[in-house]
Amino acid sequence: MASMMFTDCSSMSSSLLHVNSRRSAILFRQCVGQLPLRSTASSARACSLSIRCSSSPTLVDGKAVAKTIRDEVTVEVSRMKESIGVVPGLAVILVGDRKDSATYVRNKKKACESVGIKSLEVKLAEDCSEEQVLKSISCFNDDPSIHGILVQLPLPSHMDEQNILNAVSIEKDVDGFHPLNIGRLAMRGREPLFVPCTPKGCIELLHRYNVEIKGKRAVVIGRSNIVGMPAALLLQREDATVSIIHSRTKNPEEITREADIIIAAVGRPNMVRGSWIKPGAVIIDVGINPVDDPNAPRGYRLVGDVCYEEACKIASAITPVPGGVGPMTIAMLLSNTLISAKRIHNFE
Amino acid sequence: MASMMFTDCSSMSSSLLHVNSRRSAILFRQCVGQLPLRSTASSARACSLSIRCSSSPTLVDGKAVAKTIRDEVTVEVSRMKESIGVVPGLAVILVGDRKDSATYVRNKKKACESVGIKSLEVKLAEDCSEEQVLKSISCFNDDPSIHGILVQLPLPSHMDEQNILNAVSIEKDVDGFHPLNIGRLAMRGREPLFVPCTPKGCIELLHRYNVEIKGKRAVVIGRSNIVGMPAALLLQREDATVSIIHSRTKNPEEITREADIIIAAVGRPNMVRGSWIKPGAVIIDVGINPVDDPNAPRGYRLVGDVCYEEACKIASAITPVPGGVGPMTIAMLLSNTLISAKRIHNFE
Repeated sequence: MASMMFTDCSSMSSSLLHVNSRRSAILFRQCVGQLPLRSTASSARACSLSIRCSSSPTLVDGKAVAKTIRDEVTVEVSRMKESIGVVPGLAVILVGDRKDSATYVRNKKKACESVGIKSLEVKLAEDCSEEQVLKSISCFNDDPSIHGILVQLPLPSHMDEQNILNAVSIEKDVDGFHPLNIGRLAMRGREPLFVPCTPKGCIELLHRYNVEIKGKRAVVIGRSNIVGMPAALLLQREDATVSIIHSRTKNPEEITREADIIIAAVGRPNMVRGSWIKPGAVIIDVGINPVDDPNAPRGYRLVGDVCYEEACKIASAITPVPGGVGPMTIAMLLSNTLISAKRIHNFE
Repeated sequence: MASMMFTDCSSMSSSLLHVNSRRSAILFRQCVGQLPLRSTASSARACSLSIRCSSSPTLVDGKAVAKTIRDEVTVEVSRMKESIGVVPGLAVILVGDRKDSATYVRNKKKACESVGIKSLEVKLAEDCSEEQVLKSISCFNDDPSIHGILVQLPLPSHMDEQNILNAVSIEKDVDGFHPLNIGRLAMRGREPLFVPCTPKGCIELLHRYNVEIKGKRAVVIGRSNIVGMPAALLLQREDATVSIIHSRTKNPEEITREADIIIAAVGRPNMVRGSWIKPGAVIIDVGINPVDDPNAPRGYRLVGDVCYEEACKIASAITPVPGGVGPMTIAMLLSNTLISAKRIHNFE
């Protein structure tokens, strides 16, 4: 149970979301720490807040924010359908019989249904050829009713993942993994067509909780193509001073302790301890690591990359695991699909 | 005379290179600072060294390294011509009558000639249409004798720079500015076809002087698309722990002082003072800023972004300005053109 689970858009599937009900109420702490969280009124955009004068950190409730975003997407999908008769469409290509992949795809389809996005699925056999996958992609590229295309990863080992992902039309790359999108994300004055879902979800949480980013020190732990690297690029676009920590970093604790904002996306349970955290820092924990727990119903429980109990004593705001970044990923996928449909149909 | 001059590939034109002869001999200091510079034998790859047991820092002699690289390119161009009869070709498109641009283009042509690369130039009038520029690019994209295409910047204000640069075939984008190249540079497991010339020159200097990058703290000052940002991505690819400082950074001095390697590319004369530098740090100074100097023959002299005199007392190695990064940029352009020709003709 050592593998990390944040690498799929839908890794935070509903079956894994055991949100601690004691924590689902947001504790909002005012005037604490380096990053003053603005008025409760504007924070309430995302979710209802119960304000307590407490020393507990603000719990950044990704589940609640994701629900708000889904509701917003639902309204827009409906408005689009009524105005121009177009329903956004997402196509998912699943190759092989991996149970986890099948679950992820099922959750994506369910999420689409819940907001009124049309979803299509193509299932291909484990031993199909790369050409068959490319043919499916090509069909969806040409299909005007499809606005987003996802290829569920991992692909069977006989296939060239890079080649297959590159075949997805840049206009329909709702995962945002195409190098052209990443290049635009990195460049000032350029705009990516899509931002990868998980890092976009991280920044969206900061926005919805009115965490100031500009001029702040931010540390991203992990430099994966799908989370750490694009998260760092996004923070930089918003004028944070960003440092990226990875497996070769010699003094991660010292560097992390300088950060006003920490995004942890490394996949090591409880790696970031209380001593790593600057008082008042805001923590976005992307890791979802299963750890053995004989007392848990399934024999394991999920923990983040940050030692939650220790972090709670020192951070000003923190995402729980699960229920933090996880639910945001699918919400951002729905949002990206809507954005794509609006762009293709020039609908504002 | 406040503008910065590092933004052109050829901004370090030969007319601007007044290398201080007292400094053109490399002082090589062994076993000093955080980044031990390895044996003098391997450093001699780049240039001849005169070793002195002195407290002066190693002067990273970009002029000498650039000469070595040009010699290496000359040999390879000649070998290619003899083996398969192909001469690498670079096309430069110059729009308008800017004197500085004309000088840069002339220097690029001269540099090509000196290593045996064929160069072609198209001059278009200031008031020509964007379509005319696009047509020239399209011709060169299709011309099998051309392996690299450069559009001299800046373009007249009535043209869409992004649109024009995107028209250059990714296979011939020897400037490496195409977002697809930048995206590949940012992504682990992907390889850019070309790396932008100036940041490539910075890293090449570190390599040629055997400066260890892996695991070191690196600070890049400046986040431009053509120097700072790609330099940070390159350092990260080599496993440095990178922080990027920019105009919104609140405590640049404090962060810079943590760095084992500093790449300064911000265009502010003498911004980095001695107090910003960790003892033993290696400094690559990309800035070339003209400052008024009534005693200088032209009424100005060129200084870097780093206060050289102060830095010399504390750094273990430093690039002079001029004669540091400047000459490397054109050398890297020649190298990229050779790489392109080799790739297109499958020549190893």
